[in-house]
Amino acid sequence: MSDVEVYGRQGFGHTLSPEGHIALIIVDFVNGFADPAAFGGGNITQAIANTQHALADARIQGWKVAHSRIVFAENGSDKNIFGLKVPPLTKLHEHEPTSAVVDQLRPIEGELVVRKTAPSAFFNTGLAPWLSQYAVQTVLIAGATTSGCVRATAVDAMSYGFRPFVLEDCVGDRASGPHDASLFDIRQKYGEVMPYSALRTLLVS
Amino acid sequence: MSDVEVYGRQGFGHTLSPEGHIALIIVDFVNGFADPAAFGGGNITQAIANTQHALADARIQGWKVAHSRIVFAENGSDKNIFGLKVPPLTKLHEHEPTSAVVDQLRPIEGELVVRKTAPSAFFNTGLAPWLSQYAVQTVLIAGATTSGCVRATAVDAMSYGFRPFVLEDCVGDRASGPHDASLFDIRQKYGEVMPYSALRTLLVS
Amino acid sequence: MSDVEVYGRQGFGHTLSPEGHIALIIVDFVNGFADPAAFGGGNITQAIANTQHALADARIQGWKVAHSRIVFAENGSDKNIFGLKVPPLTKLHEHEPTSAVVDQLRPIEGELVVRKTAPSAFFNTGLAPWLSQYAVQTVLIAGATTSGCVRATAVDAMSYGFRPFVLEDCVGDRASGPHDASLFDIRQKYGEVMPYSALRTLLVS
Amino acid sequence: MSDVEVYGRQGFGHTLSPEGHIALIIVDFVNGFADPAAFGGGNITQAIANTQHALADARIQGWKVAHSRIVFAENGSDKNIFGLKVPPLTKLHEHEPTSAVVDQLRPIEGELVVRKTAPSAFFNTGLAPWLSQYAVQTVLIAGATTSGCVRATAVDAMSYGFRPFVLEDCVGDRASGPHDASLFDIRQKYGEVMPYSALRTLLVS
Repeated sequence: MSDVEVYGRQGFGHTLSPEGHIALIIVDFVNGFADPAAFGGGNITQAIANTQHALADARIQGWKVAHSRIVFAENGSDKNIFGLKVPPLTKLHEHEPTSAVVDQLRPIEGELVVRKTAPSAFFNTGLAPWLSQYAVQTVLIAGATTSGCVRATAVDAMSYGFRPFVLEDCVGDRASGPHDASLFDIRQKYGEVMPYSALRTLLVS
Repeated sequence: MSDVEVYGRQGFGHTLSPEGHIALIIVDFVNGFADPAAFGGGNITQAIANTQHALADARIQGWKVAHSRIVFAENGSDKNIFGLKVPPLTKLHEHEPTSAVVDQLRPIEGELVVRKTAPSAFFNTGLAPWLSQYAVQTVLIAGATTSGCVRATAVDAMSYGFRPFVLEDCVGDRASGPHDASLFDIRQKYGEVMPYSALRTLLVS
Repeated sequence: MSDVEVYGRQGFGHTLSPEGHIALIIVDFVNGFADPAAFGGGNITQAIANTQHALADARIQGWKVAHSRIVFAENGSDKNIFGLKVPPLTKLHEHEPTSAVVDQLRPIEGELVVRKTAPSAFFNTGLAPWLSQYAVQTVLIAGATTSGCVRATAVDAMSYGFRPFVLEDCVGDRASGPHDASLFDIRQKYGEVMPYSALRTLLVS
Repeated sequence: MSDVEVYGRQGFGHTLSPEGHIALIIVDFVNGFADPAAFGGGNITQAIANTQHALADARIQGWKVAHSRIVFAENGSDKNIFGLKVPPLTKLHEHEPTSAVVDQLRPIEGELVVRKTAPSAFFNTGLAPWLSQYAVQTVLIAGATTSGCVRATAVDAMSYGFRPFVLEDCVGDRASGPHDASLFDIRQKYGEVMPYSALRTLLVS
């Protein structure tokens, strides 16, 4: 029996439909994750390009938009366990170009930008209260990396009561194995996974 | 270049050492996840057997022990997005045998049992405050499934400031692909992964 | 200058209006807090009687309803700092009558009941995700005690992105000084404070 | 029967003793809260002066030190319910002098500084994980205002598993009624309240 069959027989993999107000969450699409010499590589560049379409629509449709950035203190005071596992992350400081959102997706007025020092864009940030304040029920998730901060954000989105739609062509990873494995897990257990174009037909008339 | 080489070159995969007080967190080793006809299968039975050794040591050494169970309300009032993706989970009620910790690992006096309706054993449970109250800094993680609640618990353990050591032979999954993929991600980004016997030599003199 | 004038001059005390979907949160109206020989007294009995009107309306109007209860484990494993400050609270076990919601307000199908071991009904419970899942933006707060769990719940409601309306005649306290002081603080900084009848005219046509 | 007698008879007001590693949390002692023309007044100036002694000891003794600041985004994107109740708070931007820690208590290398947009210094900040990472069990709390962010921080400290000691002479408020009422509540339900000199004799040999 295939993995998918095992999951299906046990009741996993049901489908969610979009509901209520919508937000687009763009996870860590900053210069450092766009650069293969830093934390990037794989299909991340393409995912950033694809996310431009989703962001353009969000701005036209009036969806809420939030961006996350990893930002550690310059003096090292907030170095945490994540920083012990991946020391170069702690060089992502507030004013380092590596921690700035890529030019193509630069936040505009009214878009939330959350700083974080953990994988999930929800963990100890203002994201969940902000979504609740605006009655958002469905979140579209783009960003990097699929097997890291995107996945953690999708799991938390679901846990916090929001419906996660991971935009398959707008999330990227430095390596394809972890990318595919996390999309499999998300589809089975946490949310929907589809290219933005497929979701667009459901949302934009 | 292999995936491991890519991660290594970017600064991932550094090693943590155990520090301070220790806790063993046993994630969702309940009857329903031990049963291949419910949510079990794969190497879960073996993982439960192996966890008995870690639990026995924990009780002798005086490590704190916490168990998690998925428990939904019988009247359906707390059905959430997780329950929409995986409807049979919402049948795990307080008094259903499927939601009871397996006999081999039954909690004893002084061991914390947290109920949850989300993947992570930390999400909206008393686990983090309890660990903080007892100055625990290092958490050993056993349980099921590796690619689901174990992984989410490991990510949150790190985010909450604890050092995660995932016990490679004490975590199980219904399918081996997701199991292996999550252990890869955890090792690269969130914590240590090793058989309990290897960790034991570091902790038990 | 009076306290109110000081606060007014500094920009405190602005008014919120109700917005979007509504929930009624009933904090710890359990037998132990209704009983002056346990944790009750003061105006709590009257507040419970008044809350019946709000609850009846909520059920008619289709507002979401959530109840909180303090529940500690029978074996003492989750005794926390709150339990050290107020040891009798740790006797509020799942099946003790003292921890059961009072008969007049007994939860019905579809109403959420959260267990907690901390003052706030939001702290490590499923309340915030449940409100978010249903796009609730405005929360009416009843319960006991005003200076304890009600206030902590109001502060957290605001922090989590919800608009708190504390029902002045539906919250009670064992002593009037702390009751009045907390209503003052809430009105200046965290939410609206008004009798249910006044809010009702805004919500029920 | 006096309020204190009522609380005593019901089992409130037990005493905590300091345990384990210690941290000093300085809540919102920024220029805007030191200035009576902004958010200050009352005994805040004196409380800042007194906190200098606690901070000096903390640095000598090697206690962990954390500071909180209210910081809203300059473009208004994170305006929340707190900002609706108290609009001038949303003018506390990253580079405004009003949001900078007062000169007398300026953070030094190794001290954590958390930004927040809610009363509690714990709410969606890195404070709890940082305390857990360093196995802190006891927190000394100074800051402003007693009835606002100090109190919310004390309640959360307890909820997160830490033992709160509110330094009576190091917390201040713009008005004495709310100051006294919150110290009463904290002493009865959440932590210890004592002048720093009294606590010092327990901690510094």
